[in-house]
Amino acid sequence: MSNPEAPLLSEILARPATRRDFITRASALSLAIPGVGAALASCAPNGGTSDSTRAAAATPGAGAAGAAGSQDKMLHHNSDSRLDSTVLKGKHGNGSSATRDATANAEQTAFHRYDPALPPLAKSNRLQLHFHAREAPIRISDDTVVAGWTFEGDIPGPIVHCRVGDTVEFTLTNESDIPHSMDFHAAQIDPKTAFRSIVKNESVSYTFKPKWAGAFMYHCGTAPVLMHIGSGMYGSIVVSPREPLPPAKEFVLVQGEYYLGDAVNGARGFDYQKMLSTVPDIVAFNGRPNQYIKEPIRVKVGDRVRFWVTSVGPQHPCNFHVVGEQFDTVYLGAPPGGAIRGVQTFAVAPGGGMCFELVCDMPGEFPFVNHAFGHGQKGAIGILSVEG
Amino acid sequence: MSNPEAPLLSEILARPATRRDFITRASALSLAIPGVGAALASCAPNGGTSDSTRAAAATPGAGAAGAAGSQDKMLHHNSDSRLDSTVLKGKHGNGSSATRDATANAEQTAFHRYDPALPPLAKSNRLQLHFHAREAPIRISDDTVVAGWTFEGDIPGPIVHCRVGDTVEFTLTNESDIPHSMDFHAAQIDPKTAFRSIVKNESVSYTFKPKWAGAFMYHCGTAPVLMHIGSGMYGSIVVSPREPLPPAKEFVLVQGEYYLGDAVNGARGFDYQKMLSTVPDIVAFNGRPNQYIKEPIRVKVGDRVRFWVTSVGPQHPCNFHVVGEQFDTVYLGAPPGGAIRGVQTFAVAPGGGMCFELVCDMPGEFPFVNHAFGHGQKGAIGILSVEG
Amino acid sequence: MSNPEAPLLSEILARPATRRDFITRASALSLAIPGVGAALASCAPNGGTSDSTRAAAATPGAGAAGAAGSQDKMLHHNSDSRLDSTVLKGKHGNGSSATRDATANAEQTAFHRYDPALPPLAKSNRLQLHFHAREAPIRISDDTVVAGWTFEGDIPGPIVHCRVGDTVEFTLTNESDIPHSMDFHAAQIDPKTAFRSIVKNESVSYTFKPKWAGAFMYHCGTAPVLMHIGSGMYGSIVVSPREPLPPAKEFVLVQGEYYLGDAVNGARGFDYQKMLSTVPDIVAFNGRPNQYIKEPIRVKVGDRVRFWVTSVGPQHPCNFHVVGEQFDTVYLGAPPGGAIRGVQTFAVAPGGGMCFELVCDMPGEFPFVNHAFGHGQKGAIGILSVEG
Repeated sequence: MSNPEAPLLSEILARPATRRDFITRASALSLAIPGVGAALASCAPNGGTSDSTRAAAATPGAGAAGAAGSQDKMLHHNSDSRLDSTVLKGKHGNGSSATRDATANAEQTAFHRYDPALPPLAKSNRLQLHFHAREAPIRISDDTVVAGWTFEGDIPGPIVHCRVGDTVEFTLTNESDIPHSMDFHAAQIDPKTAFRSIVKNESVSYTFKPKWAGAFMYHCGTAPVLMHIGSGMYGSIVVSPREPLPPAKEFVLVQGEYYLGDAVNGARGFDYQKMLSTVPDIVAFNGRPNQYIKEPIRVKVGDRVRFWVTSVGPQHPCNFHVVGEQFDTVYLGAPPGGAIRGVQTFAVAPGGGMCFELVCDMPGEFPFVNHAFGHGQKGAIGILSVEG
Repeated sequence: MSNPEAPLLSEILARPATRRDFITRASALSLAIPGVGAALASCAPNGGTSDSTRAAAATPGAGAAGAAGSQDKMLHHNSDSRLDSTVLKGKHGNGSSATRDATANAEQTAFHRYDPALPPLAKSNRLQLHFHAREAPIRISDDTVVAGWTFEGDIPGPIVHCRVGDTVEFTLTNESDIPHSMDFHAAQIDPKTAFRSIVKNESVSYTFKPKWAGAFMYHCGTAPVLMHIGSGMYGSIVVSPREPLPPAKEFVLVQGEYYLGDAVNGARGFDYQKMLSTVPDIVAFNGRPNQYIKEPIRVKVGDRVRFWVTSVGPQHPCNFHVVGEQFDTVYLGAPPGGAIRGVQTFAVAPGGGMCFELVCDMPGEFPFVNHAFGHGQKGAIGILSVEG
Repeated sequence: MSNPEAPLLSEILARPATRRDFITRASALSLAIPGVGAALASCAPNGGTSDSTRAAAATPGAGAAGAAGSQDKMLHHNSDSRLDSTVLKGKHGNGSSATRDATANAEQTAFHRYDPALPPLAKSNRLQLHFHAREAPIRISDDTVVAGWTFEGDIPGPIVHCRVGDTVEFTLTNESDIPHSMDFHAAQIDPKTAFRSIVKNESVSYTFKPKWAGAFMYHCGTAPVLMHIGSGMYGSIVVSPREPLPPAKEFVLVQGEYYLGDAVNGARGFDYQKMLSTVPDIVAFNGRPNQYIKEPIRVKVGDRVRFWVTSVGPQHPCNFHVVGEQFDTVYLGAPPGGAIRGVQTFAVAPGGGMCFELVCDMPGEFPFVNHAFGHGQKGAIGILSVEG
């Protein structure tokens, strides 16, 4: 263990749960059960949430003294949580994702378009996946690099594609100083074991067979979950039904929000306090604002287009709409079930996924957008280019 | 009438509606029609909403002078509303729920877990309910007591359970200095009469027969409705279909937001200005943040679990998700209708309710959560513990 | 061209796209493709969104110096965008809709109730519509006039009603100094051509045949779309199925948010920075807060009532509910498909529309409301009066 602040799982679980009744359990639980420590850690029982939220809301308008004061208060509430300490204070900065690894050589990082095409199915019914949790700078536009916490070095992580009933053998190895974990929404499995947090150089493996078709979010579930999702640890697994849907050009869109803090070594950190204020700076499909305006998604007249859309949040829905088009089908539940027809816009809940289909009857350039236009405006927009 | 500020219904209704055209009607209507006075009272026609909202947003970051100035402005707009006066100024404090009764002996108040189990159906087809509107301090965690406005002394009020077509005979008696009322979303009835506001020591009675199955919100509809819901006057009535659904372990979850103000006598008041800013301090299932982490909901392997979820807001949806599980059924409309299958997360609208089912195939600890993680993080999380 | 700041389409499209890589393309695209320039213009690649959002959030609480500083920063990012210049700075004011035409004779403007009745279908299968984009002051309440950007001089624009398969021949003429355009969600058409922006005295015409029934939003799609929708350029087209739905009294409700800035010549401008902060001052059905409280929607006992509801945002859903009633049918997709039964509240996504039906079994006064009560409270409320 190179990082003296990161807790050993065995060490934490060995602590008597009664020592410091509230905070200690938060710390312990956060390694054992995703999401649990998250809430406990941030939601201090003496009304600390009130203060920390107020701090978050106040930060933009407050003077330096006010902000510092609130920050102290918030940290005080979590002062006994060694896990959250790793994230929210100490050498890694104040509630920012901007660790050393997450900012290393930030300015040399190249931009690349995130390929939205649904990867083809494997021939085998058995998928073997080995992901790595990794801090890395990601260039999300010509002028902005973010201090990312990632799966496999990108935001979002890789698109996974399988069928209902396939066997997914998954391994996560943690290469980061911060504990991480993996929660697949396509898996029905005991999260206490499978989705547990692991520290640096540890691995966790589990196997699942998706029962339902759909676009499912995956994400790190380590406390505070808000911080881990908000710093980029998410992606999408698309589960196709065993009886194929109508032939289509299939694309995967993952809507995520960015709450940017100060730049460190040329990379903007993700700011935990700003996440709590729920007003994002950027909302993007597949991690990069406006990337599919510069390089549209291209199909041909006559194509059926199928969008597998997840909204990973961490806070807001994706009100998905295609300008100049209407969805002939939206699957509210697992395709081919739960279909409604003739839809202009439908909200994908944060933490949820839906499948949208349309037929390209004519050539043109059709922007797809989150029609909550404050969010569309912040980057959740792209172009579907239909060629004749 | 012990409180000289609280209006007599007869007195208010007797006022000529034309006296002071806008504000007076707000006051009168707010006793006659739930929700109506609410809007009028807060939405002063000269753009007052703009100022009061600005005040709300500014309060955290503003200096004392700024906040006081905005507060004055807001109160000025409502200065002729005796009803809202009771709530928003005068002896009860500035836009806070922290009345004398709501804070009495706050520190001696004990914590209790809110039982989420759906109560069994009565043998009779006729339910007789007598609720009391009561101000009371509620301990929502080890360290926080809130100054509640309640039905029957708790937040949420009692869970009601009946069948489609049953007769519900309901009486509300007001024991509070502030006017209150009761709006059941399961009732089809003239709200002008049935949901009317009553003053201290008055009662109102009405009878209804639920037509549709589902989880329905109930709440106080007295102006300003935002304040009354935001201060704890809500709960859930579950209406089962006459033809029983598949056997299941059934639970009731009511998601509500807390906007905390200053402590008075050891109890945090609910803050009307903060409610308008829409960034809550706490989001909780059944009134207490994280309560089902400390004491999980327990079922057994093989059980079908049915969650009747309402989101009472006052502002936000509940994006309901169970970690490590998928809902095999979500009823978007009245069960058994409107069912979709294979769902990871679905949003329950504020003021709405839905029914979620899953089957417990394996033992484990499965956190249920609002997957808008800023809100999950603030307390909308619990554990479904499945024992082998 | 009377306005030297407004760009000529030909001039802008002729610019080499590589000149100033990012911002120039934003300007060009914003005339060519609705929504596209919007995002680019506001989402400056060097993290400008972060700053402008922070500015927006900070403005209420910040001192004059802080606000001015942020404003400068925001404008700097858009400094090369002549289109957005028209909107966000220069002679028209700072990010406000309060142009000369939009405030002319504001105080003499009379209030009128917006008729919510669905207009009857034309006998012909061919609709000819000629709308005019026009800046105009609109009295939205006794005491408030707003500096509107409108279609046909009102907010919302006119209700359009046709049938699936009808031919809609539409022409927009721009009478405003600011470029505008028209995007019908009921049209499947290449937006690059049909929904293109036009400058003063230009017209654009296109023809479409709605394929699906429903309540569809229409709106100006010129960059920044958030500003154009937020300033009033929206309305609803209702497409009835060819096979008529059950006979009903039919009404159209368009929920929109108002973000008010300072008054100019007696009219409150719409404030772009405030829109980005997502906390509206007013939320209204058909443009006027509480208008259907003063003059209710009137029907009779026994009537089936059908509400065609759109939420134009620009940011928030409409969580539609009728106090004392339950919807026997909500069509999630194109009516008569996608129907669910027995619903208390359902969210209409921003940029979306849904159809809600109920039967009036008894006389009474039934408030209809956005049950996100912070928004209901701000004006999204009215009364359905059922007479015996």
